[in-house]
Amino acid sequence: MTRMCDLAPPYIRSIAPYQPGKPISDLAREMGLQPENIIKLASNENPLGVGPKAQMAMEEALHDIARYPDGNSFALRDAVCSKFGVKPDQLVFGNGSNDILELAARAFLHAGTEAVYSQHAFAVYALVTQAVGAKGVAVPAVNFGHDLTAMRAAVTPRTRIVFIANPNNPTGTLLGKQALHDFIASLPREVLVVLDEAYDEYLALEHKSEAINWLGEFENLIISRTFSKAYGLAGLRIGFGMASPDVADMMNRVRQPFNVNSIAQAAAVAALDDEEFVLRSFALNQAGMAQITQGLHALGLEYIPSHGNFVSFKIAEAGKVYQQLLQQGVILRPIAAYEMPDYLRVSIGLFDENARFLQVLESICRG
Amino acid sequence: MTRMCDLAPPYIRSIAPYQPGKPISDLAREMGLQPENIIKLASNENPLGVGPKAQMAMEEALHDIARYPDGNSFALRDAVCSKFGVKPDQLVFGNGSNDILELAARAFLHAGTEAVYSQHAFAVYALVTQAVGAKGVAVPAVNFGHDLTAMRAAVTPRTRIVFIANPNNPTGTLLGKQALHDFIASLPREVLVVLDEAYDEYLALEHKSEAINWLGEFENLIISRTFSKAYGLAGLRIGFGMASPDVADMMNRVRQPFNVNSIAQAAAVAALDDEEFVLRSFALNQAGMAQITQGLHALGLEYIPSHGNFVSFKIAEAGKVYQQLLQQGVILRPIAAYEMPDYLRVSIGLFDENARFLQVLESICRG
Repeated sequence: MTRMCDLAPPYIRSIAPYQPGKPISDLAREMGLQPENIIKLASNENPLGVGPKAQMAMEEALHDIARYPDGNSFALRDAVCSKFGVKPDQLVFGNGSNDILELAARAFLHAGTEAVYSQHAFAVYALVTQAVGAKGVAVPAVNFGHDLTAMRAAVTPRTRIVFIANPNNPTGTLLGKQALHDFIASLPREVLVVLDEAYDEYLALEHKSEAINWLGEFENLIISRTFSKAYGLAGLRIGFGMASPDVADMMNRVRQPFNVNSIAQAAAVAALDDEEFVLRSFALNQAGMAQITQGLHALGLEYIPSHGNFVSFKIAEAGKVYQQLLQQGVILRPIAAYEMPDYLRVSIGLFDENARFLQVLESICRG
Repeated sequence: MTRMCDLAPPYIRSIAPYQPGKPISDLAREMGLQPENIIKLASNENPLGVGPKAQMAMEEALHDIARYPDGNSFALRDAVCSKFGVKPDQLVFGNGSNDILELAARAFLHAGTEAVYSQHAFAVYALVTQAVGAKGVAVPAVNFGHDLTAMRAAVTPRTRIVFIANPNNPTGTLLGKQALHDFIASLPREVLVVLDEAYDEYLALEHKSEAINWLGEFENLIISRTFSKAYGLAGLRIGFGMASPDVADMMNRVRQPFNVNSIAQAAAVAALDDEEFVLRSFALNQAGMAQITQGLHALGLEYIPSHGNFVSFKIAEAGKVYQQLLQQGVILRPIAAYEMPDYLRVSIGLFDENARFLQVLESICRG
């Protein structure tokens, strides 16, 4: 007799679901810990929380929640256009930038086509590719970063999308602007580039992306941004894509009409207007990154220099250390699923959280 | 030269996006009206708003919004299991029940397969089918309701899903329990039934669905529910599916890891615990339905008796009447896209909203 799961095609049956960072509430339940004694440095969240302007906007938006959201995100579209200098028809809004990645895959990939991405790149690229029955081509990394020459060579007539994370999660590596520009210019116009800039707000000024200026030059460029990182809105789920109007149109056709909730829209408008909060988040991250990398160095641990709000470090028996940290109420992210079984990723937290993480790690290292 | 939209397959290019009810803010902008002078009876929303328990839960959930949501919806899963007597592995949570419909399509449909649904049925069934390159088969309705005999006859070896809306939107028609049970029993086990019960909370006691009791009998049954209607949480986007564990597992594999935002999860838990609010919403709807149908009758207008929180009525020059209503600040829903060009759908509102709608409609009818 057919098993019910066999009614789904093989590419669906073989999807291994995404492994998220362990929620504080899960660990509290499992270990009998008090939630307030747990620190979570596992999901690259903003340790400052939400900015004051977004907080006010959320509270206000609660008053009209029985209404469906604006399916066109009118106010948010307007705010993004003003801030980034793009046109309304270049935008796609998503239920987190995960949704943007998925919409690109669903609009442009299908069985018989291929998507190219780098080894160690964000796990969702492979997942959204597989979920539409397309073939994912993972190109070996160089020094944990994207090997653009090899990625270019991996493009075939079946390639429809190249995914690039810049900076990349979980390695924190960054591509140079010129190299990235030249790579896109080298591609056939029929191959879309999904440039995932989820961590752009954490880049130092000289590294900040200029890709928005390239949208006029490259009709095949899709830039993905999120409000889940520096803007502190991960729990609300909101991200957006910028592309040429035709490409955005196709993505909008597969989008659920009400994919972005009302509170997320209101909060995102306010968050875009709160540069002070983003700057404060950036500065805190710079200081915390120095604190953590110095601490790792003092412990004699190797780490991958990172341009994000996280850093991955090498440690013997990483899986066991992850469990030991959990037992002491510190949640990190194991990244064996990223072909980095000897590494753990730590998100940059508040000063005291970083200090406690380093102290617990030291006690474990000293065994 | 290839146009960029030609990079998407033909079935994506030909999607005609969903036409949502016009938001109050849009009409205010377009007509220069004050939002407080507009009544929206266009999207089957709960005119009472949100219940007090859900309101409190939302406010509390705002405090931790920089964290990613619980991707497993632990607390909500527990609450749904308690309330509906299902097991945790039978559940799929969605960004609105639209997401549930889409997950079913993405897990089980693909090019070369078919989905069957009724003429005049909820528009999203056709959209999610088309978006995965499958073929949609719309079966002519009988008296605006599902013709189960004809739908059974439309099932072929290529059919993977039959979508059924009960009650149906926008017609408000309801299938008898025995007829529905017999229909499901008549299907090959390899054909999934997606039973969309978005309006179940508005059914009179004797009509309430018993399909949850059938889940043990039918491994191929997926029941979809929403918090957007009687629970008053449309703006938050939250719905869920109940199915056999294997079927739920496949849908969860194509689900975005954080598809349901934190506030929606918290509000839904509280809403499930607020039976008083749901009963109050039901009673208000019964009274408003009587008020509106009596009013339509008095105007000599024919309507389709409805089991939902809306009613569709026949009116000459429906498109023109829709515009005239808009000019006077009353938003209804034209349903020409449902092959009902001579009908308008009105959602049941508060007493004063219903009265104003009827008064404006009367003035238009009297020309």
